Amino acid sequence: MYKISELQLLLDQEISSYPYPTSPKNLYEPISYLLGLGGKRLRPALLLLATDLFGGELKKAVKPALAIEFFHNFSLMHDDIMDKAPLRRGKATVHEKWKDSTAILSGDMMLIEAYKLISTAEASSLPEIISIFNTAAAEVCEGQQMDMNFEQEATVKVSEYIEMIRLKTAVLLGAALKIGAVIAHANEHDQNLIADFGIKLGIAFQLQDDILDVYGDPEKFGKQVGGDIISNKKTYLLIKSLELATGELKFRLDNLLNNKDFIAEEKVQQVTAIYDALNIREIAKQQMLKYAGKALDCLENIQVASERKAILREFASVLISREN
Amino acid sequence: MYKISELQLLLDQEISSYPYPTSPKNLYEPISYLLGLGGKRLRPALLLLATDLFGGELKKAVKPALAIEFFHNFSLMHDDIMDKAPLRRGKATVHEKWKDSTAILSGDMMLIEAYKLISTAEASSLPEIISIFNTAAAEVCEGQQMDMNFEQEATVKVSEYIEMIRLKTAVLLGAALKIGAVIAHANEHDQNLIADFGIKLGIAFQLQDDILDVYGDPEKFGKQVGGDIISNKKTYLLIKSLELATGELKFRLDNLLNNKDFIAEEKVQQVTAIYDALNIREIAKQQMLKYAGKALDCLENIQVASERKAILREFASVLISREN
Repeated sequence: MYKISELQLLLDQEISSYPYPTSPKNLYEPISYLLGLGGKRLRPALLLLATDLFGGELKKAVKPALAIEFFHNFSLMHDDIMDKAPLRRGKATVHEKWKDSTAILSGDMMLIEAYKLISTAEASSLPEIISIFNTAAAEVCEGQQMDMNFEQEATVKVSEYIEMIRLKTAVLLGAALKIGAVIAHANEHDQNLIADFGIKLGIAFQLQDDILDVYGDPEKFGKQVGGDIISNKKTYLLIKSLELATGELKFRLDNLLNNKDFIAEEKVQQVTAIYDALNIREIAKQQMLKYAGKALDCLENIQVASERKAILREFASVLISREN
Repeated sequence: MYKISELQLLLDQEISSYPYPTSPKNLYEPISYLLGLGGKRLRPALLLLATDLFGGELKKAVKPALAIEFFHNFSLMHDDIMDKAPLRRGKATVHEKWKDSTAILSGDMMLIEAYKLISTAEASSLPEIISIFNTAAAEVCEGQQMDMNFEQEATVKVSEYIEMIRLKTAVLLGAALKIGAVIAHANEHDQNLIADFGIKLGIAFQLQDDILDVYGDPEKFGKQVGGDIISNKKTYLLIKSLELATGELKFRLDNLLNNKDFIAEEKVQQVTAIYDALNIREIAKQQMLKYAGKALDCLENIQVASERKAILREFASVLISREN
């Protein structure tokens, strides 16, 4: 069994030595720039871990793992244009460093490159692998559309929010793990269990992200704490607060959301005070742990010796207790 | 053998009854809007014609043919954002009717849908078909990047221009035909010949487009005649003129290109007069016919009874003598 850190190192090496075509230069440069900004390579590492879990050959899984990382970064490149985000991992986003049209076309190329990589899978498994990949890819786009639609909607239900993060974030983790399992020729039952493990873990992962955005340690978080509050982003914390708040608290929260003329620091402080009064941090944490628990249940049911699952168990616990 | 008009009708029916998911509505609506604007369905029709030529089952080729049409329209949706084009087939472009972010995300979804469609190909041929599709998809992006780069470059050589239109336009026709041949289990030699037929025909097709933009009949052309001249677009006609013009003609042409304060109609008239003086229409037509001739040579070498090729021969002659 490989350790996560070993796999992350392997992936970093593969990405930094990736043989991009050299021309047209301005088509490929933004791709290597964005991939070079780093990140934890969680999604491709999950694919490799799943192949390893079921005793498959890691060698066969490396390019499909890169496909997942290319796809993920394609979605970041295009989402950043749509969200007009200036920064990604503390550096200029592609559309800022170059321009929108560069980020559109290089993003397209990155998605096509992801398909080139996934198409290297063994011919006998290719129809199944590409079908898993296609489904997840479409769902990620649907999730992004739902997320953008939420900005315009007056109220969003918790169930709708969970469905959005399932699509936008979680299904790609599930797909990465399932593809890893297919490469190792795991049986269908185990393939579905590990996919579900990934989806539940992905939802827990995003809920932890929502919590960290408000309650993260500014030293460790790496982004502006309270960014979601400043932009009225409909996160689990805000949606749940709008559901629970009544009377004076509801009035204050509505006012804070509607006030366009505010001092960022004060807004963050005041919204956080309302969250505290409603015990939202704990409620969100319980919700997050519920999904993490469901994820671990799936993992336990997989027909593989328990000690082989230790790394994925640890991976899950690191994800949900992370501080950045 | 099927007639082209029969195949175009079949494709129109498939596209108008396409089972799009209904939610999120604003993700899928722009896709059906753009596909619903019509067009000649040339690329998917070529795929079906190739399957039919080699005696394959048309039924197996319909979804891959739709994949080609979805891919083509994805590239139009994104190119129109990059080119800030207000109109497509006389109607508002997607980014104009909705907004840029809608056109980005629906375009992404359209590309993924194209992959879903191409992935329905028979498992035994899937690795080959998807590899042809991947290669063409990447080349179309490279062609679009070259085309955008040309806008910033002082001089472009004819050979560079031909390479750009090969990538941006021609390889997709070649890929459509080759995939159709693979579906019909044509031999490799014939697969390559029909791909080459498509590429040469695609170059001729684009050269005819360049000619029509200047010399088309305004009644039949459907677009503003002289649009390329107004925007200083580096077409075959302009590139060749810059190569051939000397003395007074060169001086006048440079002035017309550098003058930012002009009356559109006058500029079109004056540049056209220079083209006429240089005999550019005839030179471009000869170049176009050279590629059309090469295309027909490829077709003749395919190991299929000559009468079966009549439809593709006719298709080629319609394309290069078309007036819109």
